[in-house]
Amino acid sequence: MNQMAGKQSVLFQNPVKILSHACAGGKKEGEGPLGKKMDLIVEDPMFGQENWEESESQFVKAASEIAIRKAKKKKEDVRIAYCGDLLGQLIASSFGIKQLQIPFYGVYGACSSMGVTLSIGAMTVNGGFADLALAACSSHFASAEKEFRFPLGYGSQRPYSATWTVTGAGAFLLNQDKGAVEIKGITTGKIKDYGVQDPFNMGACMAPAAADTIYQSLEDFQKKPEEFDRIITGDLGAVGQRLLFTLLGDNGIDITKNHMDCGMKIYDSEEQDTHAGGSGCACSALVLSSLILPKLTSGEWTRVLFVPTGALLSQVSSNEGRTIPSIAHAVWLETTKPKK
Amino acid sequence: MNQMAGKQSVLFQNPVKILSHACAGGKKEGEGPLGKKMDLIVEDPMFGQENWEESESQFVKAASEIAIRKAKKKKEDVRIAYCGDLLGQLIASSFGIKQLQIPFYGVYGACSSMGVTLSIGAMTVNGGFADLALAACSSHFASAEKEFRFPLGYGSQRPYSATWTVTGAGAFLLNQDKGAVEIKGITTGKIKDYGVQDPFNMGACMAPAAADTIYQSLEDFQKKPEEFDRIITGDLGAVGQRLLFTLLGDNGIDITKNHMDCGMKIYDSEEQDTHAGGSGCACSALVLSSLILPKLTSGEWTRVLFVPTGALLSQVSSNEGRTIPSIAHAVWLETTKPKK
Repeated sequence: MNQMAGKQSVLFQNPVKILSHACAGGKKEGEGPLGKKMDLIVEDPMFGQENWEESESQFVKAASEIAIRKAKKKKEDVRIAYCGDLLGQLIASSFGIKQLQIPFYGVYGACSSMGVTLSIGAMTVNGGFADLALAACSSHFASAEKEFRFPLGYGSQRPYSATWTVTGAGAFLLNQDKGAVEIKGITTGKIKDYGVQDPFNMGACMAPAAADTIYQSLEDFQKKPEEFDRIITGDLGAVGQRLLFTLLGDNGIDITKNHMDCGMKIYDSEEQDTHAGGSGCACSALVLSSLILPKLTSGEWTRVLFVPTGALLSQVSSNEGRTIPSIAHAVWLETTKPKK
Repeated sequence: MNQMAGKQSVLFQNPVKILSHACAGGKKEGEGPLGKKMDLIVEDPMFGQENWEESESQFVKAASEIAIRKAKKKKEDVRIAYCGDLLGQLIASSFGIKQLQIPFYGVYGACSSMGVTLSIGAMTVNGGFADLALAACSSHFASAEKEFRFPLGYGSQRPYSATWTVTGAGAFLLNQDKGAVEIKGITTGKIKDYGVQDPFNMGACMAPAAADTIYQSLEDFQKKPEEFDRIITGDLGAVGQRLLFTLLGDNGIDITKNHMDCGMKIYDSEEQDTHAGGSGCACSALVLSSLILPKLTSGEWTRVLFVPTGALLSQVSSNEGRTIPSIAHAVWLETTKPKK
């Protein structure tokens, strides 16, 4: 059964549903505007573990367990798990999912990973390969700073274009039958590279990828921007948002009225001193679970294009002076409630 | 359409076919017993680039381009690419696939990545989400030593249980219609951790994962070991193979007669001084393209269980003194030729 749409998209003839979801955040995330909507806030950045990476794995485990409990399922009922994070060799995901003993494929899309896990998870369920799939993602401020920038102990100054990596994890259970929100379609992104090399300005790196995927998604689904209540990018932040508007505007597409960026929602950037906004796999994941899905479930929004964005750099590629290629993946989410 | 089999497997009602495949290897791989069957041997370890990581990306690009050319397709015809490698943040895959501009999801399964890309690629094609999908993997001796052990310049001694990371990449085009070999089913592995911490003894780390997945695969597909011409692990090497036989033997399963390990096939370990054998994502990928698929295509073999194995460690997890969890994924391959 051909379910391809346009050049890069899939339109599910029988949409996949989100059976349950959960998110766990750190102290700073709990103090932000969405904190009260999160399932678990862990004040201790170490989550009772010996290091930041193990802490991040505990966030993966905790969010997944809560999502499974909310669905009144057992971990043995979950047929397959897709999980991703920012760390080298995905150790946060591996050490987290290991504790659940769910059959597992690791994915990497940097901060776009929530788009990757949801997309592949939805295909897996829709094709009849799993009756229940877990899509999860995590990031951790301290493990990410150590991985990509400088150890926290150095006390480095951060420029205003820098974003703050979100600590936490989100977990989403997908199935074919039940759920208030469905995945109608997906658009797989291509890697874009405009030659930006500054790891403190991820927004500028990722905006071209976001623009490209949003453009292609609208083309493939034959939709106008205003047919979505919101078009929601992952973590472009304030700097990347301006660039996104310009790039799409050059192609005759105006999303200024209904654009939202997860990175600009998760913190109060004035109060919380987070500069350009939040970032990390958990940024999209936490905002999806604590803000986007609740609004779709309540019927306040009907249709959303969720577009997590990722910067595909590493310590090694940065040290070698290479550019920062980026990617964005789109997931079309819609309420399953009949319209009033 | 429910296509689940047993606890962890998928049995495709309409098997996915391998339309074309290619592999590119380095100098040492070219000098090994399979060298003559490889599509491209690149003598220069830098592949004309400025560093090892960029070299590895060129292997990804080259193998993919050859596979596409063999299928008489253009890169624009490839609907989706899954690719993985060993490096932090998958930079070999990203910088390689970037040059092809194919919609892309990155995956990580360490040296099991060839199992991940083939499995997810097969599900993507079978579900009607893509009419042509690319599954690829790479590794590079020098980039891997730098990432996981010591920079080559240190001239470190290697113990006999150590394996040699294969330089190269393999690429496989999947479709529903044409091909001499088909993917009949897949088994998604669970992460196993027996507490081994020695990064110079990957075989011992990975054997429990291989044993678990092979056991479950045989159960789920209701097959006996002897119904497969070969059961082929990724890169256990000589040390891991002995452990695998013991672990499966304890469960009443004897694969000693038809087991093969890619890591023990790619080099002449006496002549080439590679100790326990080859490893890396490219080990399984190159042996699949240069040995396994040709034997299935010629009809010498009819049915094979291909089980790439991966050790899920990182520099950071090793430095923190943590164990090395492992995973293995199984792919059931079969000739499409009618039996004589």
